[in-house]
Amino acid sequence: MKRRQLITAGSAAALAACAPKPQGATSNGRQRFQWKMVTSWPPNFPGLGTGVVRLADMLDKASGGRLAVKIYAGNELVPPFEVFDAVSRGTAEMGHSGAYYWKGKSEAAPFFCAVPFGLNAQEMNGWLYHGGGLELWRELYAKFDLVPFPCGNTGVQMAGWFNREITSVDDLKGLKMRIPGLGGEVMARLGVVPVNIPGGEIFTSLQQGAIDAAEWVGPYNDLAFGLYRAAKYCYYPGWQEPGPTLECMVNKSAYESLPDDLKAILDACCRAINDDMLAEYTARNQDAFKQLVETHKVEFRRLPDTVLAALREQAEIVLIELAAKDAFAKRVYDSFVAFREQVRAWSAVSEVPNFQSR
Amino acid sequence: MKRRQLITAGSAAALAACAPKPQGATSNGRQRFQWKMVTSWPPNFPGLGTGVVRLADMLDKASGGRLAVKIYAGNELVPPFEVFDAVSRGTAEMGHSGAYYWKGKSEAAPFFCAVPFGLNAQEMNGWLYHGGGLELWRELYAKFDLVPFPCGNTGVQMAGWFNREITSVDDLKGLKMRIPGLGGEVMARLGVVPVNIPGGEIFTSLQQGAIDAAEWVGPYNDLAFGLYRAAKYCYYPGWQEPGPTLECMVNKSAYESLPDDLKAILDACCRAINDDMLAEYTARNQDAFKQLVETHKVEFRRLPDTVLAALREQAEIVLIELAAKDAFAKRVYDSFVAFREQVRAWSAVSEVPNFQSR
Repeated sequence: MKRRQLITAGSAAALAACAPKPQGATSNGRQRFQWKMVTSWPPNFPGLGTGVVRLADMLDKASGGRLAVKIYAGNELVPPFEVFDAVSRGTAEMGHSGAYYWKGKSEAAPFFCAVPFGLNAQEMNGWLYHGGGLELWRELYAKFDLVPFPCGNTGVQMAGWFNREITSVDDLKGLKMRIPGLGGEVMARLGVVPVNIPGGEIFTSLQQGAIDAAEWVGPYNDLAFGLYRAAKYCYYPGWQEPGPTLECMVNKSAYESLPDDLKAILDACCRAINDDMLAEYTARNQDAFKQLVETHKVEFRRLPDTVLAALREQAEIVLIELAAKDAFAKRVYDSFVAFREQVRAWSAVSEVPNFQSR
Repeated sequence: MKRRQLITAGSAAALAACAPKPQGATSNGRQRFQWKMVTSWPPNFPGLGTGVVRLADMLDKASGGRLAVKIYAGNELVPPFEVFDAVSRGTAEMGHSGAYYWKGKSEAAPFFCAVPFGLNAQEMNGWLYHGGGLELWRELYAKFDLVPFPCGNTGVQMAGWFNREITSVDDLKGLKMRIPGLGGEVMARLGVVPVNIPGGEIFTSLQQGAIDAAEWVGPYNDLAFGLYRAAKYCYYPGWQEPGPTLECMVNKSAYESLPDDLKAILDACCRAINDDMLAEYTARNQDAFKQLVETHKVEFRRLPDTVLAALREQAEIVLIELAAKDAFAKRVYDSFVAFREQVRAWSAVSEVPNFQSR
């Protein structure tokens, strides 16, 4: 799918509304900031991209036009996976992406977005805001002259689209699957050949048989990409991304140049979008799920328990190995795992029986 | 428990920090607003009260002191259950409470906070922000000169503290239980005698045997109230409040007097607290749960399936009867129930199997 196809008249108008106003000071002499925000997403991409548009719009309104942010989709100013470097060196003042793309910078990075069999969206917020997670994240990113903010979540994703039935661990052997990051590493240990290709190439690769399977996001995004036309089964649950936190990162010098009220506005708006994007996915995923089942007759299947157990076992080993590689990653791992253990005990008497009771 | 006992040095300092600055205009001539916020909570009450303190603090910082809010705990300016009327008539410009307290104003009100076997926190946000819920809520409150904002969530609560074992529906007969609202109405249909007493009196009433059971919130708040010293068992799940949304309500004329940037700041900060309070409960509930189990040896028990099934059956009847009482309640019921049906189908392939896989 071409990026162009994702732009609608509405989105173009929304982007135009976010374009920076002429440089200078406001009428009452206060300083006006015109920032660039690079992102890892196609323009106005459902959920991730629309959330970014809402962030820029909210910043503009809350600051009375003093913090005007122009959004650049992936590849418009820098490639999707160079967002971190671009904001770190100040090419852009802000970026929107996912921390698990930056494992090359730090082994600890994926914990601030999603790790296999990790935390769901609500639990990620608990750990980040009130469990010490955000402090660790700030400490890590400070080394790269970045200030990170949690800024969105897709909720639990799907395990992926498959053209081969998965009935046992053996069925994974030799499977060519588009699955990036730690999920891919876990899969590789069970014989999968993980491939990392950009989102826009998944459809064609699946359809032409270059790959046998692919994970992307979930119904809302997968329907837009038409993945149901290229694969037979959609498997769940998304063990590899149980509640990925998206990030807004700000160049440290740029951040420090803001007056206190704009710093507070930035913080509030990122938190607001953190809340809003998950709500958008929750509402739109269920609509898209219904469409996929009723209109497109997609077969949603649960991964067998034996497969999930094998994945879970490998995932724990992958995380332990990762934590052994550097001292900071070990600190993050310890904090994350302690929170995960406690929150699992709590969810067993709260969210889980609530789901079961209805 | 006396309110005084809940005030700590830290909280008093936090409240002092939120006190309004001298009236007038700021140095650069912009208008300064000094608002009162009445709440239904004891001062700095964990979660609900601390969230309100953070809201006032965030509004102060983001507005550069132009929107200074002084917080009044329940009974300081008006009683807890007169918050709605006080903000409606402009005695205070803002209020923080829960919409299910206002069933006397409209049969539809509870849907905007929590109804038995309703939506969990994430789903409530999906319905409110992206499923039409907030538009309906705004329409209802406009009749009372109020503008409502979702502003916090406790996550799923507990079914309550019991001094009698519940093994079947028969055990509910004649049980005197502190359970307000629709939960109490559902319980009454199974023979419970529902009682509504303020939170501060629950401990003594339970301990002295004036009541046999009481629902309050969950571990974080229940531990603070010492309820484990007054009852034998804590039952779950909190079918009566699966994810209650708290509300910030603003007097309509006061809201309209704000310039556009302060309106946007108010919206962003309420959304930010909506996110943050749930995160606080998620992190603190699990700590408190661990303490209750390990230090205080509390027995947490799951309500039997037969009891949950009977409660669910009565809950559906109560909601249908409520919707039949007025046309607006019917519209809200229809929107809520349609969303609930779809989101249940979606959670069955997303959140639920994710919980099961770990």
